[in-house]
Amino acid sequence: MVNIGIIGVGLVGSELISQLATYASSVPRISVIALTNSSKQLLSTPNYSPLELSTWKQTLQTQGNTANLSVFIDYVSNSPTPAIIIDNTSSQEIASQYPLFLEKGLHVVTPNKKAFSSEATLYKEIIEEAKKNKKLVFNESTVGAGLPIISTLKDLVRTGDKINRIEGIFSGTLSYIFNEFSKSGDDNGQKFSEIVTVAKNNGYTEPDPRDDLNGLDVARKVVILGRIAGMNLSLDTLPVENIVPEPLPKNNNQVLRYVGVIDPVCGESGVKLVSLPLSHPFATLKGSDNMIAFTTQRFPNPLIIQGAGAGAAVTAFGIFSDILKIADRFEP
Amino acid sequence: MVNIGIIGVGLVGSELISQLATYASSVPRISVIALTNSSKQLLSTPNYSPLELSTWKQTLQTQGNTANLSVFIDYVSNSPTPAIIIDNTSSQEIASQYPLFLEKGLHVVTPNKKAFSSEATLYKEIIEEAKKNKKLVFNESTVGAGLPIISTLKDLVRTGDKINRIEGIFSGTLSYIFNEFSKSGDDNGQKFSEIVTVAKNNGYTEPDPRDDLNGLDVARKVVILGRIAGMNLSLDTLPVENIVPEPLPKNNNQVLRYVGVIDPVCGESGVKLVSLPLSHPFATLKGSDNMIAFTTQRFPNPLIIQGAGAGAAVTAFGIFSDILKIADRFEP
Repeated sequence: MVNIGIIGVGLVGSELISQLATYASSVPRISVIALTNSSKQLLSTPNYSPLELSTWKQTLQTQGNTANLSVFIDYVSNSPTPAIIIDNTSSQEIASQYPLFLEKGLHVVTPNKKAFSSEATLYKEIIEEAKKNKKLVFNESTVGAGLPIISTLKDLVRTGDKINRIEGIFSGTLSYIFNEFSKSGDDNGQKFSEIVTVAKNNGYTEPDPRDDLNGLDVARKVVILGRIAGMNLSLDTLPVENIVPEPLPKNNNQVLRYVGVIDPVCGESGVKLVSLPLSHPFATLKGSDNMIAFTTQRFPNPLIIQGAGAGAAVTAFGIFSDILKIADRFEP
Repeated sequence: MVNIGIIGVGLVGSELISQLATYASSVPRISVIALTNSSKQLLSTPNYSPLELSTWKQTLQTQGNTANLSVFIDYVSNSPTPAIIIDNTSSQEIASQYPLFLEKGLHVVTPNKKAFSSEATLYKEIIEEAKKNKKLVFNESTVGAGLPIISTLKDLVRTGDKINRIEGIFSGTLSYIFNEFSKSGDDNGQKFSEIVTVAKNNGYTEPDPRDDLNGLDVARKVVILGRIAGMNLSLDTLPVENIVPEPLPKNNNQVLRYVGVIDPVCGESGVKLVSLPLSHPFATLKGSDNMIAFTTQRFPNPLIIQGAGAGAAVTAFGIFSDILKIADRFEP
């Protein structure tokens, strides 16, 4: 039996709880014993009993206490059985506490990119605390949501394959925008800014679309994968083309793609705007799909993974898979 | 520390040993303590010490005893630490002994399709014995070699996603042959039989190419995935189009593909020869790559995995990843 405390119950957190609710009686057994948003928290009573997942929203509203992260963490870390903290936020502040969580005996599962793509010192500290305390930190959903990107890269690396290059379309939002831009090519030439406005109005972008367009989100994913591949990448020094203010090239036989590159061989990692022929695999991407290609010694013709890289259902799926991989280890 | 006994040291087994040799001192720790081919076997001395992997071929030749599977299994199963049997053969006889291996306390990792695609009774017995003895059976390399096909399907299923359809190009050999056939279209019209002859002479096919061409190998993969998806598929009743004696359709704007389909919704699983437009993802496949598309409730636009689906290096990679997933569970 593994106990779970969930920080962040917005879109992704709610979907995760709903997926966990349908699983309730399966093996390995997992129970949600605590959940919190930024204002309120709910700890189960009697202590360490499972929360009733079908009514958590009303219960949090009516019976929740004022959120207090240190009380929350103490409750979960004193669990009599192994316990996991799920961080569904995008908070740097919470990410910076993962070493503390690990020290307190908690495992960590998260789609939050901050801990793995910010300061190298924090990243190193997390790896060391995990090792020292024999605890696990899984973050499949930080890149490509539920697509098996990180688990595949870790398998390649630890079985001794040589990573020659990782290249990918890591932003569902930008894929969508560029697909629309490429489509509008021939006749009534919609402007890039108009397409972004439509995308924003339809809810496909962050509230401020510059958060998608400045490339920071893609850069974080490049740093995460690069570090797993053994490189010393840093957000501060990674070359990232900012596409907001530049005039965009346009060619009817090509499509625009915003590509993240991890390049352990030539050291030319970065995020770039490139114009690709229609025959390129990245050019065939539809909708908001991601596509990641691993070129390695064993896969000179790359291993490619493709599919929805954003959205609550697929992000929660990645988190849920990580939870089960931890729970597996405590099966009697 | 996990101990390993390897049955079958041909092309895949040798490559696995070579990959394991470069890993030797890493964590989690694993040691090869026994290996055997059909004529000779080598058990480590002193008992349960690691075999020296750099010289295993000569040692097996000069110091190996006559192969005796029951002696081999007894040695490995009496290991003082958790132990895994790796079956690199394609033997039905060895596959039928997995329930016995599990009963003796061994975990099983294998690229051998027989146990998972033959009689439903054997399959059921393996699952029951694994559960009863709390042992693991991992077979990632039975479908798409090292591509993360089976692990992804298992993650989707056990987190409660609904599998609507799995469709794939599961045969590297047939991909290669059809690619050549489709290419030869316009001018000097190479015959299908001529292409198969060239493929055979270049070592791309089984010794008897009919073993690739009769569809049995693809059918086994369809049965394996179908059973994981909860279906009652059987080799005896699965519709499989045999492509050997039929005249093949030909169209310059289309390519031929031999497609495996798992269809839990309409029940139309099977293996078919289809003519696809050049724009279809399966039509873009190059060389001997496999491509598998999972269409699910969470991935209505399919999750697609693509890459080398055959070859010793990638098959051994899949086996090695499975070994590490088991060894992970015994880390102190």
